[in-house]
Amino acid sequence: MNYQELSQQIKSKSSYLCVGLDSDINKIPQHLLKEEDPIFEFNKQIIDATIDYAVAYKPNIAFYESMGVKGWESLQKTIEYLPDDVFTIADAKRGDIGNTSKMYAKAFFEQMNFDSITVAPYMGSDSVEPFLEFEDKWVILLALTSNAGGKDFQFESLNSGGLLYQKVLEVSQKWGTKENMMYVVGATRSDEFKEIRKLVPNHFLLVPGVGAQGGNLKELSQNGLNKDGGLLVNSSRGIIYASNGQDFAKTAGIKALEIQKDMAGYLDQYL
Amino acid sequence: MNYQELSQQIKSKSSYLCVGLDSDINKIPQHLLKEEDPIFEFNKQIIDATIDYAVAYKPNIAFYESMGVKGWESLQKTIEYLPDDVFTIADAKRGDIGNTSKMYAKAFFEQMNFDSITVAPYMGSDSVEPFLEFEDKWVILLALTSNAGGKDFQFESLNSGGLLYQKVLEVSQKWGTKENMMYVVGATRSDEFKEIRKLVPNHFLLVPGVGAQGGNLKELSQNGLNKDGGLLVNSSRGIIYASNGQDFAKTAGIKALEIQKDMAGYLDQYL
Repeated sequence: MNYQELSQQIKSKSSYLCVGLDSDINKIPQHLLKEEDPIFEFNKQIIDATIDYAVAYKPNIAFYESMGVKGWESLQKTIEYLPDDVFTIADAKRGDIGNTSKMYAKAFFEQMNFDSITVAPYMGSDSVEPFLEFEDKWVILLALTSNAGGKDFQFESLNSGGLLYQKVLEVSQKWGTKENMMYVVGATRSDEFKEIRKLVPNHFLLVPGVGAQGGNLKELSQNGLNKDGGLLVNSSRGIIYASNGQDFAKTAGIKALEIQKDMAGYLDQYL
Repeated sequence: MNYQELSQQIKSKSSYLCVGLDSDINKIPQHLLKEEDPIFEFNKQIIDATIDYAVAYKPNIAFYESMGVKGWESLQKTIEYLPDDVFTIADAKRGDIGNTSKMYAKAFFEQMNFDSITVAPYMGSDSVEPFLEFEDKWVILLALTSNAGGKDFQFESLNSGGLLYQKVLEVSQKWGTKENMMYVVGATRSDEFKEIRKLVPNHFLLVPGVGAQGGNLKELSQNGLNKDGGLLVNSSRGIIYASNGQDFAKTAGIKALEIQKDMAGYLDQYL
């Protein structure tokens, strides 16, 4: 999916919600365990229930990888099930030397038809660029992460100016364009988020915002939306594990709709 | 495998060679393509031919992941085939928020019985610590990588003192011990390597040193070996693709033996 199409989807669905498919065999409803592929069955029902309210889906690859070959089969079926008009994110946080990153790109862009992959910046340009060579495919680069350990290095103040995460935003903008790069921005403070928007006014930002990881959707939207949308806000556990019973999919749909309604309002106000 | 056992293996084999299993379906000898699982067959023969000269094996996960479910099957068979008395490294460069890193740890330490995994430092302590909770398992943290892009951020000079990669070495030593953490150090200059050894005198260092990525084994050994060994030096393409014919395994064995002989000499001199 390209930039225009994503922007169009956001406008037509009045939503910039991304549903995180962190599907864990120990957390999905018990009654699904009798299915041949419980994780895929869970994802399928979650997708069906939320598809009208979400523009993006983001399986976190760790959850699938932890189940070995069977997990990869569930992931493959999930990506095949997702329709072409939603934006798909392999939340894989990969990154390696050039020829090896190309292998990861093949895994997620060719073996599985993901639109995008999250990539870690530590190894620099030639670990990221191989992902950018694929047409209509995207890198979503980690800039500022919302976990506690994010503070260990990302906020280091540099002699060349600014903080490390700001340097990542600045330098990496030379590697791609707003048409093939986004950033993971887990900003928890409003002023931080405003600063980031100044540094990258045009790129899409993926925000692990709503739900378990905290974050205020109104503030995010006010500071982050731009004329093309410019935001994807992820919710994982708050949607997919909203209920643990027979009604899990229906409840997930209700939660997604609640968020989408708020988003529709913010799009009216701030776009 | 624990610290003592690894040290013992190095001494008994007079080797600190790690063989990188970057096994690529497009590069392995043609005659293997008729096998049911060409990648596993390739690995098996490479392992058989080099096992007397190597103390560690390091499949780069990207190569397996790029082949989808089939690739994971080849990887699983490879890790099962490797004997318990070699140190196994999942070169995966993973790292995510806490509960997700735990999933990756399960994938590589439980689903597959790897001794260690390479991890990227950008997300900080809580992305690394879940890997350290597994007994006799190791994190190999990226500190200094030898690719061109390694210079984009790793050499940033910090207001708090030192360079970013040095900070990574310094801070992360609080997360684990020399018994469960190593570092990837792709130092290309001798003075750099000496400085690193001063910062981390006791930890094992994994060096992508010999072969395609350059590096001088004598200098590395002189500056890097400590009383317990303290070094693993990787060679991938220089060994596994030394020949592309029927004799590929035999030739890989000869190449590994050449390196091992040099290492035996350096162990005598510098241990």
